[in-house]
Amino acid sequence: MAKNPLHYIMSPGSIAIVGASANPMKMGTIQYLNLAGSGFQGDILLVHPTEDVIFGRKAYPSVKELPYAPELAFLVVPTMLIPSMMEDFGRLGTRYAVVITAGFKEIGEKGERLEHEIVDIARRYGMRFLGPNCMGIVNSQLPLNATVLPLQGYNGKLGLASQSGTYVTQTLPYLHKHGICLSKAISVGNEANIDITDCLEYLGEDKDTKVIALYIESIRRAGRFLELAREISRKKPIVAQYVGGTEAGARAGSSHTGAMAGPDYIYDGLFEQAGVIRVNTIEELYTIGWGLASQPPIKGNRIAILTNSGGPGTAIANTCNKHGLTVPEFPTDLQERIRAFIPGHAIPRNPVDLTFHTDDEAITQKIPEVLFSSDEIDGIIIHGIMDTGFSEVIYPMFKDIFKCSKDEFRKMGMIDLSGLVKMPWQYNKPLMISSFFDHEDHCIRAFHENGIPTFDSPEKTALAMAALYKHYLIRTRACDTPENLPSVPEKARQIIDRIETGAVDEYRAKQILMAYGIPTTNEALVHTYEEALKGAHAIGYPVALKACSPDILHKTEQGLVYLDIKDDEGLKNAYESIKQKERDTPLLVCEMLKGDRELMAGMSYFPGFPPCIMFGLGGIFTEVLKDRVIRLAPLSHTDATSMMMSVSSSPLLGSYRGMKPVDRDAFSSILINLGYLSLHFPQIKEIDLNPIIVVGGYPKVADALFIMEG
Amino acid sequence: MAKNPLHYIMSPGSIAIVGASANPMKMGTIQYLNLAGSGFQGDILLVHPTEDVIFGRKAYPSVKELPYAPELAFLVVPTMLIPSMMEDFGRLGTRYAVVITAGFKEIGEKGERLEHEIVDIARRYGMRFLGPNCMGIVNSQLPLNATVLPLQGYNGKLGLASQSGTYVTQTLPYLHKHGICLSKAISVGNEANIDITDCLEYLGEDKDTKVIALYIESIRRAGRFLELAREISRKKPIVAQYVGGTEAGARAGSSHTGAMAGPDYIYDGLFEQAGVIRVNTIEELYTIGWGLASQPPIKGNRIAILTNSGGPGTAIANTCNKHGLTVPEFPTDLQERIRAFIPGHAIPRNPVDLTFHTDDEAITQKIPEVLFSSDEIDGIIIHGIMDTGFSEVIYPMFKDIFKCSKDEFRKMGMIDLSGLVKMPWQYNKPLMISSFFDHEDHCIRAFHENGIPTFDSPEKTALAMAALYKHYLIRTRACDTPENLPSVPEKARQIIDRIETGAVDEYRAKQILMAYGIPTTNEALVHTYEEALKGAHAIGYPVALKACSPDILHKTEQGLVYLDIKDDEGLKNAYESIKQKERDTPLLVCEMLKGDRELMAGMSYFPGFPPCIMFGLGGIFTEVLKDRVIRLAPLSHTDATSMMMSVSSSPLLGSYRGMKPVDRDAFSSILINLGYLSLHFPQIKEIDLNPIIVVGGYPKVADALFIMEG
Repeated sequence: MAKNPLHYIMSPGSIAIVGASANPMKMGTIQYLNLAGSGFQGDILLVHPTEDVIFGRKAYPSVKELPYAPELAFLVVPTMLIPSMMEDFGRLGTRYAVVITAGFKEIGEKGERLEHEIVDIARRYGMRFLGPNCMGIVNSQLPLNATVLPLQGYNGKLGLASQSGTYVTQTLPYLHKHGICLSKAISVGNEANIDITDCLEYLGEDKDTKVIALYIESIRRAGRFLELAREISRKKPIVAQYVGGTEAGARAGSSHTGAMAGPDYIYDGLFEQAGVIRVNTIEELYTIGWGLASQPPIKGNRIAILTNSGGPGTAIANTCNKHGLTVPEFPTDLQERIRAFIPGHAIPRNPVDLTFHTDDEAITQKIPEVLFSSDEIDGIIIHGIMDTGFSEVIYPMFKDIFKCSKDEFRKMGMIDLSGLVKMPWQYNKPLMISSFFDHEDHCIRAFHENGIPTFDSPEKTALAMAALYKHYLIRTRACDTPENLPSVPEKARQIIDRIETGAVDEYRAKQILMAYGIPTTNEALVHTYEEALKGAHAIGYPVALKACSPDILHKTEQGLVYLDIKDDEGLKNAYESIKQKERDTPLLVCEMLKGDRELMAGMSYFPGFPPCIMFGLGGIFTEVLKDRVIRLAPLSHTDATSMMMSVSSSPLLGSYRGMKPVDRDAFSSILINLGYLSLHFPQIKEIDLNPIIVVGGYPKVADALFIMEG
Repeated sequence: MAKNPLHYIMSPGSIAIVGASANPMKMGTIQYLNLAGSGFQGDILLVHPTEDVIFGRKAYPSVKELPYAPELAFLVVPTMLIPSMMEDFGRLGTRYAVVITAGFKEIGEKGERLEHEIVDIARRYGMRFLGPNCMGIVNSQLPLNATVLPLQGYNGKLGLASQSGTYVTQTLPYLHKHGICLSKAISVGNEANIDITDCLEYLGEDKDTKVIALYIESIRRAGRFLELAREISRKKPIVAQYVGGTEAGARAGSSHTGAMAGPDYIYDGLFEQAGVIRVNTIEELYTIGWGLASQPPIKGNRIAILTNSGGPGTAIANTCNKHGLTVPEFPTDLQERIRAFIPGHAIPRNPVDLTFHTDDEAITQKIPEVLFSSDEIDGIIIHGIMDTGFSEVIYPMFKDIFKCSKDEFRKMGMIDLSGLVKMPWQYNKPLMISSFFDHEDHCIRAFHENGIPTFDSPEKTALAMAALYKHYLIRTRACDTPENLPSVPEKARQIIDRIETGAVDEYRAKQILMAYGIPTTNEALVHTYEEALKGAHAIGYPVALKACSPDILHKTEQGLVYLDIKDDEGLKNAYESIKQKERDTPLLVCEMLKGDRELMAGMSYFPGFPPCIMFGLGGIFTEVLKDRVIRLAPLSHTDATSMMMSVSSSPLLGSYRGMKPVDRDAFSSILINLGYLSLHFPQIKEIDLNPIIVVGGYPKVADALFIMEG
């Protein structure tokens, strides 16, 4: 298999920049200066039509005149020049490019044509490229920084791919302030050639990247994304923000990178299936990503909270509980061991509240040691460690008393964190810090230097810890990829081959389902009353009688369905009544199921996505309450059971009022086979199995509708 | 009515501090130094048993020896000394106190006794006090700051009351960094005498407080809280964080201030009814509170987004849409007016994305003027204004080129915001700023100095704008307080007076409901088959027949209910079958309702709360899916209709499948009258009206259960 092109783009031996000039305020110039200043060890070649020397470096008048084919071309020139530049580099032998320039697909039809043009050129020369309309790349290990802002703090672990350039460039100082270090960062722009799914694959393979963070406005190859993410997320956490789920988000995204977004529930399904942890804000993408990247993985959900204040402790406890973590009351012996280090009136139940009066050693060393070494605890959150930030604020009150300079005063209160910052690795448990102070506090700097994540609110700290536990659940969930696509059932092929376009009648639809092992009602297709009578007797009363034609979509509404027919007389009445309305349509005599619940399953398509398998409780739950979930075909067994647990109304699948729970294996098998069917026959554009009636816990399809392409 | 004691506590003419000493690291000392340094203009008297002079100020050896009774006593002494101190101040004539000292109710039984003791002392002397176990008070207008940290930035507008001391003290530097200015701040501690509801009243009356922010672990007087908040929130926004809704949150809160928390849905109901905007984090409490306090009220939900980058613009648009705001595509003429100021390839549809290359005047002056002056826009969000913060970061790249100092370089890029910061008041529309920079950026400082809120992520900015719109909805919602409690229906009193304890039988329960005008099924209480027959004929078949006794709670499960009886024969069978099991129990013959939906309503109590009226769709929706909401009695008409809209399953109350929508007025009236009934008869501890059957849109109670006290 071809190596992912990003391995070359992110680690080139030589780069040609077209677009840097003597004007220091131009984007190309800034990117050049940044790259040159970043410590990049490879060759940098400049191209400029009129300037010979740019900031001390020779510039070549054209691409043709370059001394050799650079490994990477970096293009920041006016939009109209991009095609000929690409052509020139292609001819020269350069195979990788980053196209910064905007003005393509995102501005409408004219730009789209231009984008097609450069895609064609790249194909002709076997080139791969990032962009257009992107902001550059960062490889902190090389180092290489071809964005508009300098990178501070190396030793990165968080790999970022973003459909917004700002999030790999303008936020670099923000990341530094939060102690967050990137391994690699990629701005993908319009994704004309390389897309965010390629980035996912690359970051998955990149050994320096411990966690992958994705800013997403649209995924163009959802099937491949799923396949990759499913594998990667078992080892490396993947965190993603998706912003295209609303009308305004989708429209803004389309102006931004020309992408086509989809509703939230489609992406929720994809992310759940792929093991991707979804976050709601860019701050969470960075800080939760960093929490995951910087700390040892968590091995359970029992959190200890150590605080110098009750409010933050309570807020942390509450947020932990809301997001799947427990804050267990400590057993007596653990409480006793902690009691030695706390003020008399404090109670070490968990949270351990030291209250405002406390010695630094208790909160930074002695109690953490007890907590880290306990078997009852999986992760530790501490709020309230602070020194110089606090000293600085109170200095005005004390300067006349202590008669010392602010610097001396700051030093007086400085806390030694050398023991605490080692504990996570010593005990192999995560530590997260909550503090209202920032870099002005020496403790915060010390935590950042040692890779301990800090959060400027108690709730955010708890949320980040909850994300570690989410990844624990993903890491440890049943490891079943979908099975290989089975071969097409011959019976199904025979039926489908004979169908042309439009809807498929219920009888044939159910025959196809049966070929896939999906249980359906026992039934007979009949053309005369005698056949109907024979069918009813074979099935046994009560039965249902329905008109059966691909042209009739809403049978019930048209009075073409009679349910619960109890005897021959009822059958005759129903038969005649239907025949009066539909003289030439055959009829279906069906077994009448006495179930205790109705479910539904279906399939539909969404641009860029493989068949989406849908599940919901039937009737009002899907129709009126819109309570349904999707997963992408093919489904693993875990995907199918997780679907059933993901609808809001999932408690209704359980056992209550004396009903048996819905058999998970049986229903999963319906969903999985629906996926196979959809993949086997892409000409089927829509499937609706509704209702699926549950009898004694076992589901049977009572009505089915297929819509074929065309 | 007595003036709220906080008017005296927050603005005292003189304060005695007991607990300050020559040891500068003691809390009392720090609070004294802070108070003395805060510019407080009143007298400060110190009391210390052994020190004569504390930091230059005379100290009196005991409370008795104070020259006069100070208006406020501020106590920071060991727990055991508090009662005698309170006694001494009471005897001296001081009527207000702040008790900082901890070690009371929050530590268990022993502390609780001590807390009762000081409550008794206060009662004897007519004293009112804050605490114990609190952290002090701030009045930025006086000024007076008796917390442990200095206050920066006056001109406060945000009033804060908190059940955590940290949130009025340790976060003061954090607030300053975010440009947030407090008007008043109150740490309420254990609320032994003054509680957060008193604070709400005081802050509601305080003319300097434009918005009230509350950090809540428990509300002890929910009825009064509701009454006050309902009135206040029509003018002043109230924002609240509640952290007691989980097991861990409740337990942590109880260790913290000894308070009893309740589940989230109880508080959701209270807040909704009271017009309180609930937030999830302390950061939101502060920043959203400040957004509301600092900006003109919004008058609609149409937001314009101006950005220098697509990603943040998209994230803002998406978050706006998710939280009730629209980001309308601009009409053509507005687009044309903006197009003059943007780069060729940018599209001014909304968001207006200037992309990275832009002139400062476009984003800070020209386009904002167009947006502020448009009738199509109610609020403006801008992302990407930055100057010195950005210059500082890029300086290393440019220092050799421009050959200037960092300061000169910073000044070169400085942006004039004098026009923009006036626009919100000039056009009377809110402006919110998103930026990844902090105080190091001159623009952020300029925004803060001019009271424009800034947020360090796009999504937070949108959320704050959404809160403005939430308050618009609260401000403009139907202004109906509950009516005065009507008089007790004589019939209801007669029945209830004769009931002692335990359950009430269905017949009498329905008689009581009827006395309140709540529609119930037509029915007859019968003792013989002849009576049953007569009843059934009067009502008309089909009927239901049930055993009717206060001692039988689960009639259906015991086979004591027969539904849908169609004729005399059916009645006879049912009668005999019930009589076989319950020989001496009277029976109820009821009209058999053919409805299309079942609802439920109920009442229960929660500590500190008035009767909680509950609503849900019946059956599985309340039993299995726990989909129900509560409101506190008495209910206004708006409360009752909002309840119906607040359950997740509320779409099922509408019109679908040919059913008539549930009549809102009719159902509201049931809920309102249920509230009156509960308030009239506090001996009723629980009511369950289930099912309430909807026939042609109109609800009728089909079964009712009352549980009396004892």
